[in-house]
Amino acid sequence: MWKETAISNAEWTGVRLRDLLLLAGVNPNDTRIKHVHLEGADTDLEGQCYGVSITFEKAMSPETIIAYSMNGTEIPRDHGAPLRCVVPGVVGARQVKWLKTIRLSDVESPSHWQQKDYRVFATSVELGDELDWKSIHSIQEYPIQSAFCIPPPGTKVERAEGTVDVAGYAWSGGGRGIIRVEVSGDGGKTWQNAELEQDENQDIDHMWAWTLFRASIKIPEGVNKMELVVKATDRAYNTQPETPAGIWNLRGLINNAWHRVEVEITD
Amino acid sequence: MWKETAISNAEWTGVRLRDLLLLAGVNPNDTRIKHVHLEGADTDLEGQCYGVSITFEKAMSPETIIAYSMNGTEIPRDHGAPLRCVVPGVVGARQVKWLKTIRLSDVESPSHWQQKDYRVFATSVELGDELDWKSIHSIQEYPIQSAFCIPPPGTKVERAEGTVDVAGYAWSGGGRGIIRVEVSGDGGKTWQNAELEQDENQDIDHMWAWTLFRASIKIPEGVNKMELVVKATDRAYNTQPETPAGIWNLRGLINNAWHRVEVEITD
Repeated sequence: MWKETAISNAEWTGVRLRDLLLLAGVNPNDTRIKHVHLEGADTDLEGQCYGVSITFEKAMSPETIIAYSMNGTEIPRDHGAPLRCVVPGVVGARQVKWLKTIRLSDVESPSHWQQKDYRVFATSVELGDELDWKSIHSIQEYPIQSAFCIPPPGTKVERAEGTVDVAGYAWSGGGRGIIRVEVSGDGGKTWQNAELEQDENQDIDHMWAWTLFRASIKIPEGVNKMELVVKATDRAYNTQPETPAGIWNLRGLINNAWHRVEVEITD
Repeated sequence: MWKETAISNAEWTGVRLRDLLLLAGVNPNDTRIKHVHLEGADTDLEGQCYGVSITFEKAMSPETIIAYSMNGTEIPRDHGAPLRCVVPGVVGARQVKWLKTIRLSDVESPSHWQQKDYRVFATSVELGDELDWKSIHSIQEYPIQSAFCIPPPGTKVERAEGTVDVAGYAWSGGGRGIIRVEVSGDGGKTWQNAELEQDENQDIDHMWAWTLFRASIKIPEGVNKMELVVKATDRAYNTQPETPAGIWNLRGLINNAWHRVEVEITD
C-alpha cells in the first residue's frame, strides 16, 4: 500500500535517447516508427524481462534521457543502476530500470506490463466481468494530483496554536505546470490559496518536477476536528474530482480525487 | 449565453505559421523568443485592435496555421476572412480572426484580452475583492469537457420506446484524444460506455477534432423522469469534476463539470 508516497523527485543526468537513436542511424522522419520498446534486466517468475513502450514522439523529445547518474552520483541499484530510462511527464511504469534493450516498432510493446497492466477500466466494469484489455488505453501521462504530507492523519493540534500548518506536493503529467493549489479546513466548503514552491529552471509548459505547497489554516472557534482538503489546477485548467466515485475502477488505479486528512483539535 | 454551443469543428486550409516565420528570417533556436503576438483588424470601442498571444513553441508546431480556407471554400467574413490563425488544441480566444499583425516577444501580449480577460480566478475570489490579474494564468489549453446535444432538456420520451437515445461531443485541450465517454440515466449512480466516432486521420496524441458519442440508455421501470449525465476521460486520464462547486469562479469561465439533462418519461 503506497498511499501518498509513490512519487519522488530527483536530479537525473544522462544522454538524450534522441541522440542515441540518431547515432544508431534512426531516421526521425520515418513515419513507420510509432513506439519505442524498453526492456530491463529484471524478470518475472516466468523469466520474462520487464518491458513497456513509450511513443516515438516522446522518445525523440529533448527531455527523455538514458540516465547514468542520480542526484549527482551513481544510480543506486534499487533505482536502476547502471542505466535507467527517464521519461519526464510520464508515469514511473515506463521509466525502465536496469535498461537492457531499446527497440523501435509500429505497435506498442506486446509485454504483459504494456498490454495487461497499467490500463484503467471504466467504472462500470466489475469483478467477474470478462475483461477486454484491447479496448482500453495504456497509461502514459498521469492526470493532475495533489496530497498533504504534513500533517499526517489523526494528528492532534492544540487549539492555542491558532492554525494548522499544512504542506505537500502537486503534480500533473505531460509537463503541465501547477498554476494553483487550494486548501480547505472545513471539508471543502471554503478554500484558500496555498503558497507554491517550484523549480525556477522549469517553465509552466515543461514542469517535470513537482510543486511543493504550504499554508496555514485558521482553526475555527468551537470545532473538535477539522477535515483538511487539498486540490490543484494545472496550466490546462485540469482539476481533480471531488470524490473517487466517478473514477473508481477495478484495479484501483489513478485515484486523483481531492486528498482529505482529518485532524483533532485539543484544548 | 452560449450554453453547450460555443464549440464547432471545421476543416481549415492554410500555411504553417512556422514556415511563415522561418521565411521571415526568424531563428527557431532564439531562446529570447517566448511568445507570438497576434492582432486582428477588429477594434474595441476605444480603437484597440483585438490581440492575444500564443507560446513560441505552439506557434512553431506543425498544426498551427494561417488559414485562408474553411471547409474547402473561402473563409466567411464572420469566421475571419481573408486570414485567420488556427491554433489546434488551444481555446478559440487565441485563434485570431481578420489577422493583421504577427509579432515576436519575450513576454505575453500586453493586450486587455491576454492580460485581463480569459483568465480564471480561484474559487475563493469573490465579487468586490481586489483583483490581482498578474497572479493568474491566461487560458491556453482547455481541460476535458463533454456535453449532450440530444436530447435537449425537458424532452418528453414515451415509456414504450424502451430507451432514451443520447448523442453529443467530447473534447480535450492540447490534442489529448478522448479515450472514453460514459453516460448515466440515473444522475450518475450507474454508468455505461458510449460509442465513439473520431477522425481517423488523428491519433490519440494529436486529436484536434471533437469526438462524437452516442448511446441508448434503458428506461428503468416506474420512473417519471430521468437525469441524464455524461462525463469523458482523455488520454492523460484527465476527468471532469462532478459539480461546478470546486471550480466556480468569479467570471464563470471553464465550467467543465459533468453535463446533466433532465427528461420526462410519459405513458
